[in-house]
Amino acid sequence: MAVGPENFPLMPAIAGVRLGTAKAGVKKPGRRDLVVIEVPNGASVAATFTRNAFCAAPVHVARDHLGQTAPRYLLINTGNANAGTGARGRQDAESCCTALADLAGIDSQQVMPFSTGVIGEPLPVEKIAAGLPEALAALAEDQWEAAAEGIMTTDTRIKGATTQVELSGGVVTINGISKGSGMIQPNMATMLGFVACDADIAPDTLQQWLREAVSVSFNAITVDSDTSTNDACTLIATGKGPTITAGEDEQRFRHALTGVLTELAQAIIRDGEGATKFVTLQVEQARTVEEARAVAFTVAHSPLVKTALYASDANWGRILAAVGRAPVDSLDVDRVVIDLGEVRLVEQGGRAESYTEEAGARVMAREEITIRIELGRGDASATVWTSDLSHDYVSINADYRS
Amino acid sequence: MAVGPENFPLMPAIAGVRLGTAKAGVKKPGRRDLVVIEVPNGASVAATFTRNAFCAAPVHVARDHLGQTAPRYLLINTGNANAGTGARGRQDAESCCTALADLAGIDSQQVMPFSTGVIGEPLPVEKIAAGLPEALAALAEDQWEAAAEGIMTTDTRIKGATTQVELSGGVVTINGISKGSGMIQPNMATMLGFVACDADIAPDTLQQWLREAVSVSFNAITVDSDTSTNDACTLIATGKGPTITAGEDEQRFRHALTGVLTELAQAIIRDGEGATKFVTLQVEQARTVEEARAVAFTVAHSPLVKTALYASDANWGRILAAVGRAPVDSLDVDRVVIDLGEVRLVEQGGRAESYTEEAGARVMAREEITIRIELGRGDASATVWTSDLSHDYVSINADYRS
Repeated sequence: MAVGPENFPLMPAIAGVRLGTAKAGVKKPGRRDLVVIEVPNGASVAATFTRNAFCAAPVHVARDHLGQTAPRYLLINTGNANAGTGARGRQDAESCCTALADLAGIDSQQVMPFSTGVIGEPLPVEKIAAGLPEALAALAEDQWEAAAEGIMTTDTRIKGATTQVELSGGVVTINGISKGSGMIQPNMATMLGFVACDADIAPDTLQQWLREAVSVSFNAITVDSDTSTNDACTLIATGKGPTITAGEDEQRFRHALTGVLTELAQAIIRDGEGATKFVTLQVEQARTVEEARAVAFTVAHSPLVKTALYASDANWGRILAAVGRAPVDSLDVDRVVIDLGEVRLVEQGGRAESYTEEAGARVMAREEITIRIELGRGDASATVWTSDLSHDYVSINADYRS
Repeated sequence: MAVGPENFPLMPAIAGVRLGTAKAGVKKPGRRDLVVIEVPNGASVAATFTRNAFCAAPVHVARDHLGQTAPRYLLINTGNANAGTGARGRQDAESCCTALADLAGIDSQQVMPFSTGVIGEPLPVEKIAAGLPEALAALAEDQWEAAAEGIMTTDTRIKGATTQVELSGGVVTINGISKGSGMIQPNMATMLGFVACDADIAPDTLQQWLREAVSVSFNAITVDSDTSTNDACTLIATGKGPTITAGEDEQRFRHALTGVLTELAQAIIRDGEGATKFVTLQVEQARTVEEARAVAFTVAHSPLVKTALYASDANWGRILAAVGRAPVDSLDVDRVVIDLGEVRLVEQGGRAESYTEEAGARVMAREEITIRIELGRGDASATVWTSDLSHDYVSINADYRS
């Protein structure tokens, strides 16, 4: 199940960024499960990684490699997360990097590894190494869709976003792909996101812009509150296109970048495990952004709110109870306002005078629902996106060994 | 569904504590939905209430009344929570207290009101008032089981616990009843718990002992992380039995009190909505108790861990990922140990060498499961109890308007 129409965009080429896939049989044969992304010489690369303390071996290795030198290849496998694998896991991730480096004639530190899939099984290094020639032979600039398919696990849809923005020095193209469906509350990144553009941006600047864009996109979504061990989001700037100058150009570019990341993040929610609803939580009039986010995530994680959304039941009492238990000091409930779409649910500590069950039911019947919460104590705000909790969510996670 | 055998104990009378029930038709006719508990003159009463900012009208009123005078009656209705009802809700709760006070010839401040059920509907004061004579006529010291039935909502079982403890001044009896099944992560109390003993204890001391006992019993359980608007736990000490002297007597009494509260709290988890497993999370070697509790609740709330428990799948990767995302600064994963029952799952950052799928599956097949987590960074510990996340949980909460 997934929410809204499926829509993979036409992706223009980004000169020098080539993508290749292979069927390496990591977990099962016949699946496109290996992806190589080639980064041109001279490009800047930035990345954010999961904050899960048990972060996976490839996360350690990718972060180390990025700290040492400019990457030339991203190497991604599905079917095995290489997480919870201890010292051996790191060695396995290094071995995969070495195998690719040998074929490409580069240094192994120039490869950033990424894995997603089952936690705790040893990574089948031989299979991955054996699949690399096929992936390298397939490298081409028009393979974004194949790469998006190659990084899927429990996803039911391939996920991509693209935009072009006109700057003073010319047009910049931003392409991105992502994957993720369950174990989703990214903290610093998503399950996996790969974004590239042709602008000319220094690595430190790129890293800062990525971090800020991720905080309002990938870090503002949750399916089930379970931050993964393997989350990573990587941004490439090839440097072959325009330089980004401070001022209006920078603003336009960063707005476009945030737009692409948000679209990719929202695509993960639309394809959230068992999702039948796409829910936007807007919290306003908070004292701080952190407070606004805390309230939004408390509502987004409430199993009772999520099952009510699944049932299309305008059960505003559960939303009120979730807001009431959020970690906010001395909340004055008489100043809290809660709207469901265009319908006022709660004001002055209770159900709004104007509220009718019919009006609530009309909004709840929709596939896309916005819950707006005013806290009445400041001017900070935050937006978070989530899905509902359905029978399919339980079936998927009670059956699938992930 | 519920976990373990149903077992309501024989409750000895506690002199002066009389209980009466009636069918007032609060939500539906023919249900025992009104309970009155009479407290003898001279008794001490202590109570803890929900910390939900949107706490219900009866919570406000009960707290106010308890602060003003010694209670003589507890008045409990199910079928309507009188929560999210604003100023009118408080007035309605006061009206119910007045109705009872008039019949009993006492002051309305001497009545503590409690409500549980649907949030946001006006309380049917007339029906409750009309039911009071029947409840008062039924008052007797042997009606604990009827009262336990009278406070049920989505509960599938009546819940009670009793113990007797021998002190230097004689035997003290402690009786308790509770209700709760969903919207359960109490914060300062349970959905509803009523406990009485015949010891002689000053109100301030009683309040302190109750608070400490609640913190390791009702405040250590979670079904779905959703702290209710109506949680309340009340403890009566009639003063007709022995005085509790400091030292060994106090220790024995408080141990017995914590035991009764823990049994009542665990009964709520065994009857958790859709529960098929009763899960004990023991976190050890934490720096502080708060840290240990935070890790335990993170694992207890993980939908992926809860669905794996439902599936009897020893999916240790999900437990590891939940521990890794818990709010603990600079956790050294190499020192973390995770045991499932008697089977070691995780050590040195990954799957334990000795682990086999068969051993994990053997433990997971049980109805009662203990997950033990050593953090390797201190000597504080905490225990939390929870249930699994099943199809029935979704069905119950997608169908029932609570």
